[in-house]
Amino acid sequence: MSQRPLTYAIIGSGALGGYYGARLLHGGAEVHFLLHSDYEHVAKHGLVVESTQHDDITLPDVHAYRAVSDMPCCDVVIVGLKSTSNALLAELLPGVVKDDGCVLTLQNGLGPEDEAAAVVGAEKVLGGLCFLCSNRVGPGHIKQDRFDHIKLGEFGKRGISERMKAIASDFEAGGVRVQLAEDLPAARWEKLVWNVPYNGLAAVLGVDCSVLMQRVEPLVADLMFEVVSAARAVVRHTIPTSFVETMLNNTRNMDAYKPSMMIDREMGRPMEIEAIYGEPVRRAEAAGCAVPKMRMLYEQLKVLDASQQS
Amino acid sequence: MSQRPLTYAIIGSGALGGYYGARLLHGGAEVHFLLHSDYEHVAKHGLVVESTQHDDITLPDVHAYRAVSDMPCCDVVIVGLKSTSNALLAELLPGVVKDDGCVLTLQNGLGPEDEAAAVVGAEKVLGGLCFLCSNRVGPGHIKQDRFDHIKLGEFGKRGISERMKAIASDFEAGGVRVQLAEDLPAARWEKLVWNVPYNGLAAVLGVDCSVLMQRVEPLVADLMFEVVSAARAVVRHTIPTSFVETMLNNTRNMDAYKPSMMIDREMGRPMEIEAIYGEPVRRAEAAGCAVPKMRMLYEQLKVLDASQQS
Repeated sequence: MSQRPLTYAIIGSGALGGYYGARLLHGGAEVHFLLHSDYEHVAKHGLVVESTQHDDITLPDVHAYRAVSDMPCCDVVIVGLKSTSNALLAELLPGVVKDDGCVLTLQNGLGPEDEAAAVVGAEKVLGGLCFLCSNRVGPGHIKQDRFDHIKLGEFGKRGISERMKAIASDFEAGGVRVQLAEDLPAARWEKLVWNVPYNGLAAVLGVDCSVLMQRVEPLVADLMFEVVSAARAVVRHTIPTSFVETMLNNTRNMDAYKPSMMIDREMGRPMEIEAIYGEPVRRAEAAGCAVPKMRMLYEQLKVLDASQQS
Repeated sequence: MSQRPLTYAIIGSGALGGYYGARLLHGGAEVHFLLHSDYEHVAKHGLVVESTQHDDITLPDVHAYRAVSDMPCCDVVIVGLKSTSNALLAELLPGVVKDDGCVLTLQNGLGPEDEAAAVVGAEKVLGGLCFLCSNRVGPGHIKQDRFDHIKLGEFGKRGISERMKAIASDFEAGGVRVQLAEDLPAARWEKLVWNVPYNGLAAVLGVDCSVLMQRVEPLVADLMFEVVSAARAVVRHTIPTSFVETMLNNTRNMDAYKPSMMIDREMGRPMEIEAIYGEPVRRAEAAGCAVPKMRMLYEQLKVLDASQQS
């Protein structure tokens, strides 16, 4: 990777990509934003980020693009799309990554890094888990609340690389805490312990996390333990029972939180079913680990998604 | 039981109880109807039953009651309530069953006979499985379509009794085909092979049976096989795989059929969750038979029901 300062391309500058791009830019990095519906507005007026834990930031002048063909090649290409749009990666990534650059997928679930790797090669890919609450509240206008930290890791190899440190340092200059993960797959499976029960059940049943905890905590816990078994079978990672307990306790104390998949369903938007369910279920079953409740939730979500998109 | 002709009390004269009571009356039996919302209308104008497979029947003059205390004791007391109202049985049954009479529960799922037995004693109880499509289309006005046959059995003992034959003969005089079951629990579990997958999935996902067959047939089949395993564990009854195949094939050919639980959810009415899920799941688990998908569907339905009734 080139000398610092690094240059960044943000592919998908919504509530997530837009937020982290703005933080990087605020920290002094050179950032190029690919935009879709907000392009006109952002090209003219820039980005505004409101926050409950940082100072608000106003970035009146940003590099905004409507097409990747107009963007310069960058050191770090951040994928901020929803995973349901990953079929576009083959078209979006190749022209915008420097020869010695890398792609950082900031997406949910399993599979995003593999999809990026299929386009640019595994050695160019990193993954990041985002613990972020943010919403697009208007064109180029994002509101962030509570969390925004990232857990960052290399795809296809263990350990902590120089480029991980360099990227982390740019995020931190913008105020985002970054944790370096030696084992990205293990970290991804740990995140699924939360995502698998709450996203799917909330979307299927139309109730928020606090209602799930009141009414079906044993089912939530069963799903968490299926994820624990699958992580062991698929990536030989032992998630401690205390981690499951912590997830349950933390969520018990969240008031009326709606997971992203529930909001997606309410808004009639595609849900990230393959990344959070399809891919984990297939990998678990291929490793000989039965995950009947995850499998059932996966099948149910596909029916809802098909009803919604038809 | 007394000499023929037998006298009948219908406890719950809705789309089901009203239909079968009308058929018995049409066949020449003496029938007494307990009514709730339709009492005024039926006391004045009687019952009308339209049918696609029989001649329509008009019964201008019926014995209608608003309270069991006004009803005579009868030979056969038919419970036509939904199982969600079974807490009322303790109050409804005792005064209306002759000393040598019996109670026939025409309800879904598992548990109704036990609930009646707790009130009148096991030796007085029979159960019937109804294969009926009927709707209340107005006060005292029922429309029946396609099926209406009944499978009848003794509760708590095997074999075919004289009273089963006598009751069957009265139904048949009214045009309803009755099959005599030597083993009622086995028949109840067989009926669950259909009820468990379709009712719950259709209610949770808001799609009819044809959509379920198109999109999640493997999940439907998994649930059916959980019922098969549970029947083996709980009542030592082996349901052949060919039976499962027949259920799947028959349903594949039903166009856009909505199971009763889906209609109940659409109408905001209580769903028969305990009889179709709670009781079978508890009995299976108590017999050491894991039924993870039935259990999950049961938990999901309770959440939906609680959201709906709150």
